[in-house]
Parts: sequence; C-alpha cells; structure tokens
Amino acid sequence: MRVQQKTLKDLFIDQLKDIYFAEKQIYKTLPKLVQAAESAELKKAFTDHRVQTEDHISRLETVFEMLGKSPQAKTCEAIKGIMTEGDETIEEYGESEAIDAGLVASGQAVEHYEMARYGTLIAWAKQLAMPDAAKLFAATLQEEKAADQLLTKIGLGAVNKKSAAA
Amino acid sequence: MRVQQKTLKDLFIDQLKDIYFAEKQIYKTLPKLVQAAESAELKKAFTDHRVQTEDHISRLETVFEMLGKSPQAKTCEAIKGIMTEGDETIEEYGESEAIDAGLVASGQAVEHYEMARYGTLIAWAKQLAMPDAAKLFAATLQEEKAADQLLTKIGLGAVNKKSAAA
Repeated sequence: MRVQQKTLKDLFIDQLKDIYFAEKQIYKTLPKLVQAAESAELKKAFTDHRVQTEDHISRLETVFEMLGKSPQAKTCEAIKGIMTEGDETIEEYGESEAIDAGLVASGQAVEHYEMARYGTLIAWAKQLAMPDAAKLFAATLQEEKAADQLLTKIGLGAVNKKSAAA
Repeated sequence: MRVQQKTLKDLFIDQLKDIYFAEKQIYKTLPKLVQAAESAELKKAFTDHRVQTEDHISRLETVFEMLGKSPQAKTCEAIKGIMTEGDETIEEYGESEAIDAGLVASGQAVEHYEMARYGTLIAWAKQLAMPDAAKLFAATLQEEKAADQLLTKIGLGAVNKKSAAA
C-alpha cells in the first residue's frame, strides 16, 4: 500500500516557508550591509530595501492566512549559503576599494534567488486557484527586480567612479 | 602602516573561482536530476544543459588562462545551499506527482544564481579591460537565460497537464 502522495500544494507550502525564512534573514542582515557599504547611494539602497522587505514578509503572512495556517519558517539552506558568501566578502574586502562592488554582487545574488522563488510561487499559486496570492507575489517580484536593477546601476556607477579616480 | 589593499581584480578572480566551483558541481549533479525527472521533456532539458555546462566550464578555464592562472575552484556556499534544497526536494517529492514542478523550481534557482554571477562578471571584466572575457561570460549568460526560460515553459506545461488529468 502506498502512503498518500504529496501534492503541488504541499510543495507550494514548503516553498512558502522557505522564502519566509529567507525574507526574515534578509531583514536581519541588511543593517550589516548598510554599515559595510562605502557610498551613500548604496547605503540608501539597502536601507530602502529593508523597508520593502517588511512588506514582503507581511505579504507572505497574508498568504499563510489565506491557507488557514500560521506563518512558519523552514530553514532555507540556499539563502544561508548566499549570505555566507556575503559575509566572506565583507570580511575579505571590508577595507578595500572594491567593497561596494562586492556588496552589490552579494545583493544581486540575493535578489536573483528571490526572483527565482517568487516566479515559481506565482506559477504554482495560479495553478492552485489562488489568484490573490499570485498577485501578492507578483507585487514583491516587481520590487525585487527593481532592487536588482538599482544595484546594477549603482554597481556601474561605483566602478566608473573608481576608474575615473585611478 | 596599511597592508596592500585588495582590488577589484582580486574580487574578480575570487568570483571566477566561485563560479568555476559552481559549474563543476552543476555538471556533477545534473545526472541526478535527469534520473529524478518524470517527463521526457524535463529529462532532455537537463541532459542538454549538461552538455552546455561543459562549454561554460571550458570558457571559465579560458578566462583563467587570460589571467595567466591555472583554473582553481573555491567552495561556493551558495550553490551548495541551493543544491541541498534540490536534494531535499528529490527526497521528499521523488514519489510525488509534484516532482517535476519541484525539479523545475530547483533548476531555476540554480539558473538565477548563475545569471546573477555572470552579470556581475561581465560588468567587472569590462571595467578590468578584459572585453574578450566579457564576451565569453555573455555567451554563457545567454545560455543560462535560455535554460531558465525553457524550464518556465516545461513547468507550465507539466502543471497544466496534471491539471487537465485531475
């Protein structure tokens, strides 16, 4: 006899717990990036993104409610790994002229992880007939994409400035 | 007295070692995904991507040569974390109807990590006056993006098929 099979809904809930953990970690970690950043522009980008992250967390809590569940985080090894690399960058490049370039790269790795996960969650929410959840994820996805683009812009600016000064 | 500061070039080389490690891990891991996938289409996508990954590795080795260095891998905690999550998906959903959806999501998390890293490497290669390296990274980036789009397509197809069958 076969045990009851897991379904797409189980997978959806697991993924929701994973990104809930990730968003909370990001919220905790951003002040460290603000502190490590050299340029005012990058400090501001990380500070503003922290405010947005509060909304991302709150939207996830709304989706848990839609499912009749209490918000629950599940350790997300991916975001832990990405953040470990960010910590290494701060440790090794904290005193270097390249710190902002390194922080931009770390930030973009985080944004891309989130973009992948929210893209998946949107597809699954639609399939599970949860269009309101899909809309909430889409709002967050747009903000993650915008944050990624802002980091690209800051990264190019930082790099060009260093180049002009050299 | 201050020790000699690390530069953008050091950061570039560190990042190159990181993605070299990641690509080699991906190459090793893809057969496991081929085996776990249910649909022939997804099996083929992972199989084809493994062939492309050989090129990605070889392009990175060319960039090491351009720098006058032997190829060297540096443990990439991010890809390790992303792959740990992929393993969990196979373990928990291997017998489930949702396995392909889970594998598509894992594959897309990997693709997005690579997209972030190659995007960064292109920007830095240009800044370091290595246009040939930038071109190699850009070729790989295009393939990663195409792989991500193919997974989106397969994901939607898989999900719709299950839906129609339900």
